[in-house]
Amino acid sequence: MVITLTTDFGHKDPFAGVMKGVVLSINPQVRIVDLTHEIPPQDIKEAAYVLWDSFPYFPSGSVHVVVVDPEVGSERRAIIINSHGQFFIGPDNGVFTKIIPEAKEIRRLTPLLSPLNLRGGSQRGATFHGRDVFAPAAAWLSKGKKPSAFGPAVKDPVTLSLPEPLIKKGRLYGEVVRFDRFGNAITNISDKDLSFLMGKRPIVKIKRLALPIAAYYAQAGEMKAGAIINSNGWLEIFSYLGSAKDILRLVKGTPVEVHAG
Amino acid sequence: MVITLTTDFGHKDPFAGVMKGVVLSINPQVRIVDLTHEIPPQDIKEAAYVLWDSFPYFPSGSVHVVVVDPEVGSERRAIIINSHGQFFIGPDNGVFTKIIPEAKEIRRLTPLLSPLNLRGGSQRGATFHGRDVFAPAAAWLSKGKKPSAFGPAVKDPVTLSLPEPLIKKGRLYGEVVRFDRFGNAITNISDKDLSFLMGKRPIVKIKRLALPIAAYYAQAGEMKAGAIINSNGWLEIFSYLGSAKDILRLVKGTPVEVHAG
Amino acid sequence: MVITLTTDFGHKDPFAGVMKGVVLSINPQVRIVDLTHEIPPQDIKEAAYVLWDSFPYFPSGSVHVVVVDPEVGSERRAIIINSHGQFFIGPDNGVFTKIIPEAKEIRRLTPLLSPLNLRGGSQRGATFHGRDVFAPAAAWLSKGKKPSAFGPAVKDPVTLSLPEPLIKKGRLYGEVVRFDRFGNAITNISDKDLSFLMGKRPIVKIKRLALPIAAYYAQAGEMKAGAIINSNGWLEIFSYLGSAKDILRLVKGTPVEVHAG
Repeated sequence: MVITLTTDFGHKDPFAGVMKGVVLSINPQVRIVDLTHEIPPQDIKEAAYVLWDSFPYFPSGSVHVVVVDPEVGSERRAIIINSHGQFFIGPDNGVFTKIIPEAKEIRRLTPLLSPLNLRGGSQRGATFHGRDVFAPAAAWLSKGKKPSAFGPAVKDPVTLSLPEPLIKKGRLYGEVVRFDRFGNAITNISDKDLSFLMGKRPIVKIKRLALPIAAYYAQAGEMKAGAIINSNGWLEIFSYLGSAKDILRLVKGTPVEVHAG
Repeated sequence: MVITLTTDFGHKDPFAGVMKGVVLSINPQVRIVDLTHEIPPQDIKEAAYVLWDSFPYFPSGSVHVVVVDPEVGSERRAIIINSHGQFFIGPDNGVFTKIIPEAKEIRRLTPLLSPLNLRGGSQRGATFHGRDVFAPAAAWLSKGKKPSAFGPAVKDPVTLSLPEPLIKKGRLYGEVVRFDRFGNAITNISDKDLSFLMGKRPIVKIKRLALPIAAYYAQAGEMKAGAIINSNGWLEIFSYLGSAKDILRLVKGTPVEVHAG
Repeated sequence: MVITLTTDFGHKDPFAGVMKGVVLSINPQVRIVDLTHEIPPQDIKEAAYVLWDSFPYFPSGSVHVVVVDPEVGSERRAIIINSHGQFFIGPDNGVFTKIIPEAKEIRRLTPLLSPLNLRGGSQRGATFHGRDVFAPAAAWLSKGKKPSAFGPAVKDPVTLSLPEPLIKKGRLYGEVVRFDRFGNAITNISDKDLSFLMGKRPIVKIKRLALPIAAYYAQAGEMKAGAIINSNGWLEIFSYLGSAKDILRLVKGTPVEVHAG
């Protein structure tokens, strides 16, 4: 069995390592994979996209833990989702927006065990549910415990309104929603959204450029901008051997338009 | 069995990966967890705190390797400690200051094996004890070898003088000792230190602020400073959705005071 | 069995995590070790050096995957190498320059399986061979599949011209080729290259300094520059508790000279 971690912890602090210690204390056999610990602090939307792009590549029955959790310790709920043959654990704050529509089961995660209290008598703050609530639950799920064992069904999970592309007068209007480490700009337009062109050649307009869709990065000239369908099926604006973000001064929300060439 | 790594290697170089290669060559079954590789270069005190906060969450018998080692290759000793039901391996330079008071056994680590010499005849420098001394010892410990097999008992391990809070005229005086990735300032005052208030409500003074203790981060207003008992039991100064370090211009050593409200 | 990963992905994106998901879907038992994901973007030479320094510390039969691949998706070949009792997988762009001279077998990697197509019907771009080609091949190799099963023999693999030191009139001329996280400058001069001195004491000239070779870092004064044979056998310029790169204003290509003292 595999457990993945997606957090905004960064790499300076031992937070992720400590979660792994808790997991391995309960299930010494499980394999733990870091998806990323570099979600921008508190950026729930980015976590929602990253998880959606990544989970299909894991074995069925995998458990995906997300800790991007600005409201930790407050009354916000924690949830467990069974969807797409896999499990998802984290705060009920919208990180699972893209997972929820096809969920077979959503349960509230009410800690089974009293909080860990390892140095006798010390009253720890309620600020690290990743360690004290999500990691133990993930370990128990990976050992076969059922979501229903953790709490009651949830009918009204929190979902975010993520920007959706729209078609108007034969043109598709979308926007940049995030950037990868190379400065590539990922849009909210997927390969399927391009079917409205009915096979015609797409032209991508961003800033004042009109770009065809390249088959691979090196097809664009060096430091020149290009458009591509990326490895997760999203329309992406890139610059070969450069940063599209910097060169074109793109931000989250920069408009992108597609029409027939 | 679990081996953890705490280093100042950063993530650019393959140093930690190579240590894992050495470990898995000796014990292919052991699980290896990164606590952090982002200890500030040579910052022995920070490593001492990080290890102290983290090790209790690992299974009994775990082996914790620390490589923050400015004197590597010199006459400084390497040691193995058996304490709290776990093992600790690293340089004898104070990284184990908080572990040592309850140690059951401290041994000098005198390499059992001649140094690895993998490309015949090459005389490698003595600059990577993490790979050549600590990793092999950790792997052998994880396979059941006893600390006494590695060298003679050590009676006088090096310890650092870490700043301790003190009570004077009904007030507790401490200081900021480190920061986490979010800019939260962690003090040397623990939840137990607050018992001098005998149940009265604590007020935390830092810079010109007087703060009550919050139950969770979101309880403070956005970008406002707050005080909290963090998940490891330390009094922490935070700013909700911001960096307390930047907003309050805190440094290591900034004084913190607690009195009854 | 062990699979290692060496990439320029950085840590922001889930690329490495997704590769691990693919590997564990095929071989749930294999151990995966990150060598580094911080190769500077597209820096094939640095990847070649890092791999060369690291692979000898892994068990025989390990599989080393390198994804530093500016031409991904173009006609550049992918290759599998059997060398030094281990396997190497990646683009045929020179990352294996130092491995190839002793290779027993080099095969073209022609994907056995049609590309993963996980969300029915979606036509993904050919931009992530790490996930779609290299990770599955590494997993199958780790399960015992032979390199010959993946494609035809390659007679003309791509190799880079890496700068080699040379001896002229009793002096050895080399250069700085890379830096580690501490700002240590690693040269292309190895301990073996120093045998031309026939036992005489080496003096290392860099910028206007003439340095003896230290036995360990702390032997140089604080913030003073020194020369050392590093843990991989390379002549390295360092500054104790400082960054030689910054203090001496070194760059890749800065000349280094060695003569008898």
